[in-house]
Amino acid sequence: MPSLVSFTYSINPTDMSIVHDFNEYRERMNVRLLAHENRTLKRFWSLDASAYEEGVLDRRTKEMLGLVSSMVLRCDDCIRYHLGKCHAEGLTTPELMEIFAIANLVGGSIVIPHTRRAMEFWEALENESARDSSGK
Amino acid sequence: MPSLVSFTYSINPTDMSIVHDFNEYRERMNVRLLAHENRTLKRFWSLDASAYEEGVLDRRTKEMLGLVSSMVLRCDDCIRYHLGKCHAEGLTTPELMEIFAIANLVGGSIVIPHTRRAMEFWEALENESARDSSGK
Amino acid sequence: MPSLVSFTYSINPTDMSIVHDFNEYRERMNVRLLAHENRTLKRFWSLDASAYEEGVLDRRTKEMLGLVSSMVLRCDDCIRYHLGKCHAEGLTTPELMEIFAIANLVGGSIVIPHTRRAMEFWEALENESARDSSGK
Amino acid sequence: MPSLVSFTYSINPTDMSIVHDFNEYRERMNVRLLAHENRTLKRFWSLDASAYEEGVLDRRTKEMLGLVSSMVLRCDDCIRYHLGKCHAEGLTTPELMEIFAIANLVGGSIVIPHTRRAMEFWEALENESARDSSGK
Amino acid sequence: MPSLVSFTYSINPTDMSIVHDFNEYRERMNVRLLAHENRTLKRFWSLDASAYEEGVLDRRTKEMLGLVSSMVLRCDDCIRYHLGKCHAEGLTTPELMEIFAIANLVGGSIVIPHTRRAMEFWEALENESARDSSGK
Amino acid sequence: MPSLVSFTYSINPTDMSIVHDFNEYRERMNVRLLAHENRTLKRFWSLDASAYEEGVLDRRTKEMLGLVSSMVLRCDDCIRYHLGKCHAEGLTTPELMEIFAIANLVGGSIVIPHTRRAMEFWEALENESARDSSGK
Repeated sequence: MPSLVSFTYSINPTDMSIVHDFNEYRERMNVRLLAHENRTLKRFWSLDASAYEEGVLDRRTKEMLGLVSSMVLRCDDCIRYHLGKCHAEGLTTPELMEIFAIANLVGGSIVIPHTRRAMEFWEALENESARDSSGK
Repeated sequence: MPSLVSFTYSINPTDMSIVHDFNEYRERMNVRLLAHENRTLKRFWSLDASAYEEGVLDRRTKEMLGLVSSMVLRCDDCIRYHLGKCHAEGLTTPELMEIFAIANLVGGSIVIPHTRRAMEFWEALENESARDSSGK
Repeated sequence: MPSLVSFTYSINPTDMSIVHDFNEYRERMNVRLLAHENRTLKRFWSLDASAYEEGVLDRRTKEMLGLVSSMVLRCDDCIRYHLGKCHAEGLTTPELMEIFAIANLVGGSIVIPHTRRAMEFWEALENESARDSSGK
Repeated sequence: MPSLVSFTYSINPTDMSIVHDFNEYRERMNVRLLAHENRTLKRFWSLDASAYEEGVLDRRTKEMLGLVSSMVLRCDDCIRYHLGKCHAEGLTTPELMEIFAIANLVGGSIVIPHTRRAMEFWEALENESARDSSGK
Repeated sequence: MPSLVSFTYSINPTDMSIVHDFNEYRERMNVRLLAHENRTLKRFWSLDASAYEEGVLDRRTKEMLGLVSSMVLRCDDCIRYHLGKCHAEGLTTPELMEIFAIANLVGGSIVIPHTRRAMEFWEALENESARDSSGK
Repeated sequence: MPSLVSFTYSINPTDMSIVHDFNEYRERMNVRLLAHENRTLKRFWSLDASAYEEGVLDRRTKEMLGLVSSMVLRCDDCIRYHLGKCHAEGLTTPELMEIFAIANLVGGSIVIPHTRRAMEFWEALENESARDSSGK
């Protein structure tokens, strides 16, 4: 009998695949969901995207707000999404650490496991961009 | 050193196994838990089952209530359980989409990742019943 | 020195004022918020209203979904809002009790205090409509 | 026009009334709810009460577990209920402080306002029992 | 028999008192809690304060992060605390609206009632500073 | 195309690896996070550890408080951490069941899937210590 265990960790060949797998799954399922043409769902998702556009607050600040909210609500996939956006906006690792610190204090020690997973995803994003800029 | 990553996705040979694996794990661990004969736990679980029985509200409505509650509380396994029940009660995909829409609006964008996973499980349920009715 | 205490209960002359006060405050503050013309907020609120419109699921079912979601998320004002809508859709008290039961089982004993407050609001809605239909 | 403000604090003549008002409201609404004879609700509430009875863990430990759970879930009325029970079980203020500390660390700074309200209720319980034992 | 109703609204003579009452209660209860000299609690609260100090992110950004986190976690008192800090940091009302919009989308319609109460508190802060600067 | 499914279960060769993998991942990512020398994060984590030290409440009671809090907040990794500590403190399986019962009643049926995963981790801890004491 296979021992099915309740674990959220699995083995991936490279760090890079975390970013790729997350994006691939997210896009594929979004397509399937939107194919059913539910108008409310469609409008909500498009509204969600538009909320982070440049306004009186810039995109970078808004993505930080999205990230910290996702952390205190402990939504790993939301965290990954906003980490990707924050990375694209040029957030630095020391800045990220200050967001982690606020999320941990506001949301408590239950945020710690999500912080570990966020760190791993951030490192994958950093590795990916290091490799891209090194000409690979 | 194996790269253990914090990912909730793993590779399964077929869509069908999502439904099977979920049910198998759920039943196996329930048996182990109930073996310890804690009376409160036992009564709570049996009470939980009875709450969805036909009353002044029918089972179909009650399963929809269970599903939307599980979605806004972002409990993937609870969502899977109620998706199975809703499917058995003949819920249609357009009806499901309207439940998804309400869950997304009430619970916010943090419900989106759970909606994607719910969609995948629903498709597996649909595929399974299509195959069953096609004579396999 | 006045003894300011952290209590959510205050004295109101009549039950009727619960419904009136809730609606008055809600509408007044909505007007003030929308006056600032934030486009995302405006669209989100209008989208939220449209999600409960008749679709493949009827309004009555959708309002029940809104109510149970609000209960498990323990949002008293959201509960009051959907209780008002459910009452207008003709939900009966025994049906309400079954929604309360599911909300209590899914969300646990922390839902109980919100159930008490929901009951009080529901009774105020019932009293109000009894008085209205008796010719006052 | 009356200025209705969204405040959870109101003025009470004495600290003692916090305890009395809480108990009075709780009992009154429980009676009204149970009058509707919903069997699931009735059984859930009775099961909830029985969970804190002496078992392999004593009542005192169980009430501490109920209190800390209520604090991290930020349910003021649940906190008040378990504070009353913990007080009856002879919990000391330094013990209470250690429960507060764990609740604050696990649940984060959002637990702080609930800790303030818990402190006020605890002081009311202490004052009440001091007065009772002083012969009043 | 007094009609004790489960309402979070009470009547205050002036808007100004919202800010004053909040600060007064908060400070008074903090003093009482810290008087018990629980070292963990003391260190947690002091750590919480230090997290919002100028770092690689400025205080203004950090207070916005604290505000949005408090909104999605639906902690009214935490929202009030950070609104006070954001106001002191010169946050403008259109900026506040964009924070409200993100909080509403991330956390869903259950954040709306907290947004209304946040608006009322913000207006009280604005009125207070208008009066102060007008020479009162 | 690989079928990436949203499942939290994966196949592990032995039960023992659940405990090992959890600890290995946790320690490795903690090291990476703390390497960035964010002072607030560092102090919060050290404070979190110190909260469970012997005080007026003993370590065993405190670990039970940490466990039940983690369960009602539905944080699987936090549950695993405190299960490890409770096991080291000599908690018995019948005592664990009573903690499970309270967590289920306070937090509702959404706690059930976390209870199943907790049970599996507990059995792995039990197996591991049985093997250790049998001279392996």
